[in-house]
Amino acid sequence: MKVLAENRSIVLAKRPDGAPKVTDFALQTSDNLPLEAGQFRCRNHYVSLDAGFRNWMNENSGDDILPAMALGSPVMGLVLGEVIESRHPDYTAGDKLMARFAWQEYSVSDGSDFIARLPAHLAFPPSAYMGVLGDTGMSAYFGMTDIGHPGPGDCVLISGAGGAVGSIAGQLAKIQGAYVVGIVGSQAKADWITTQLGYDAAVIRRQGEPLLASILERCPNGVDLFFDNVGGSVLEAAIAAMNPHGRLVLCGAISGYGSDEPLPGPSNMFDVVTKELKIQGFMTHLRHDRYGEAMAALGGYLSQGKIKSPEHMLYGIERVPQAFADLFAGRNFGKTIVNLIDQPL
Amino acid sequence: MKVLAENRSIVLAKRPDGAPKVTDFALQTSDNLPLEAGQFRCRNHYVSLDAGFRNWMNENSGDDILPAMALGSPVMGLVLGEVIESRHPDYTAGDKLMARFAWQEYSVSDGSDFIARLPAHLAFPPSAYMGVLGDTGMSAYFGMTDIGHPGPGDCVLISGAGGAVGSIAGQLAKIQGAYVVGIVGSQAKADWITTQLGYDAAVIRRQGEPLLASILERCPNGVDLFFDNVGGSVLEAAIAAMNPHGRLVLCGAISGYGSDEPLPGPSNMFDVVTKELKIQGFMTHLRHDRYGEAMAALGGYLSQGKIKSPEHMLYGIERVPQAFADLFAGRNFGKTIVNLIDQPL
Repeated sequence: MKVLAENRSIVLAKRPDGAPKVTDFALQTSDNLPLEAGQFRCRNHYVSLDAGFRNWMNENSGDDILPAMALGSPVMGLVLGEVIESRHPDYTAGDKLMARFAWQEYSVSDGSDFIARLPAHLAFPPSAYMGVLGDTGMSAYFGMTDIGHPGPGDCVLISGAGGAVGSIAGQLAKIQGAYVVGIVGSQAKADWITTQLGYDAAVIRRQGEPLLASILERCPNGVDLFFDNVGGSVLEAAIAAMNPHGRLVLCGAISGYGSDEPLPGPSNMFDVVTKELKIQGFMTHLRHDRYGEAMAALGGYLSQGKIKSPEHMLYGIERVPQAFADLFAGRNFGKTIVNLIDQPL
Repeated sequence: MKVLAENRSIVLAKRPDGAPKVTDFALQTSDNLPLEAGQFRCRNHYVSLDAGFRNWMNENSGDDILPAMALGSPVMGLVLGEVIESRHPDYTAGDKLMARFAWQEYSVSDGSDFIARLPAHLAFPPSAYMGVLGDTGMSAYFGMTDIGHPGPGDCVLISGAGGAVGSIAGQLAKIQGAYVVGIVGSQAKADWITTQLGYDAAVIRRQGEPLLASILERCPNGVDLFFDNVGGSVLEAAIAAMNPHGRLVLCGAISGYGSDEPLPGPSNMFDVVTKELKIQGFMTHLRHDRYGEAMAALGGYLSQGKIKSPEHMLYGIERVPQAFADLFAGRNFGKTIVNLIDQPL
């Protein structure tokens, strides 16, 4: 067995107050200990940055299944890597995995973590398995396929439209023939989603400008389907813009992850009654058994050039905190990924 | 044609601020004018009091289909009566109707109002057609049948449980074999729903007491289905008490009708994501074409003694404002109805 380098991890140095900052995290170096029976070691090539994990950085977050992250421990996150040694009967060196391990170069697991196997020969660039073929793409796929059902004649509104999930969700709605409008935070993102991703129009959120009026300007006949990654006041404006019998798919609420204080809720819930709206939330990882179906569909679109897999890529474990902070500042165009190792997977 | 007495109506004297008061309304006497071609006149026997109409008393309420009520005009409401003269081809003297006319003794219509015909020979007391067989029962039926789907093993929570809709909704959930808990505002109502309506348990809302803890005391395994008539902080507590994949049926939001200011929304909408909740609103009158189905089902239960049709009955047109105010003070046990005329229908 070859001697491994030290393992570098990013640990939770303190619980973020509001949007995460680089200084909420610290780089920690530790030894790679020998495996125990029933364990395997994964060399992580890529870290996926997902805003939803912010929620588990709060002290009183989590539940029995996924408890709050511990201070001083490596930060829970999604990684993509390769098994390099194994004393576990189900895992063999060379297995390629996407898993909920931690922000670190090497992870040891007993197989009880959330783990998805990748094919031995990857048909797409590895990072695509964290983006359009990963949880990001899954979120867009399940939200649209299982709940949203966009179709021709629908006006589909998507918040966080230039983010990881939004950038895929919009393309999926376009494939189904809908008119698709994205809510973004800057002119640059508005230009990007309309020229690069096929969005029909963009709404730019600007401090002090009423969002509802901006939405109705781009969706003059109202909104039939809202796919929400942001929550809070954006959800409230969308409820106001919905047509009767509209569907609201709640995928995430990045505007609320940054705070221990609860977000003010939509004050227009009575619109849900009068317009007979349907609001449904979903968690991508609870649909684990259908990842195959989703990957086949999304891989097909990718092969046929029907969707793009935009990535905001940074390099090196020490850049992971920055990459995470970028998400909350909206600096990412598409999926945020950190490449940990300058070697092909 | 016989000479008709004067027509007495209750008009909107001023727009209510908060919960409606008797002084927001005034009694007005007018002549019964001769019918024009295409019109018919209905003698109204009963007025149904429904909190939802409060919404249309606000200045900036309503839409193209159902505009805001006008100051000085008879208040829009549901009545049950009999056609006494007609110059309309589809209506004949003796026709029994339930209709969205106004709080008045006689109404003239050209048939374009919301009108449901009743059978010539009523199988149940007329007031039942405004309660369990009227919009009230329809609301309970459609909310439970189309959206809620209660069944054995479900813990069903109902707000406004002693009100018109809640008193029926709870009985319907019991028929389907669920464990049913009602939220009420007083000990008297708690006793009433558990001893008279078959509710398994009651939660009493008390100022300053955390509602969530009270709910979880009565629903120790969490809530699977929430049927909401109240909204606001009650909805927020229910969201917190929901089990994964819970269903929330939004039927009304009486806590919000009393104010021009929007109700604060539920601050825990992210729970909708993490617990994969489904929230759906509905409007009873949009299911007009299925009233026959609902009346058959509810009439069957009523005949078989499986449900009761509790009524809070007042007498005389001048008592209608008091009856409406009673709703918002929670003084009604079951359906609030005013009997306008001391004659059998």
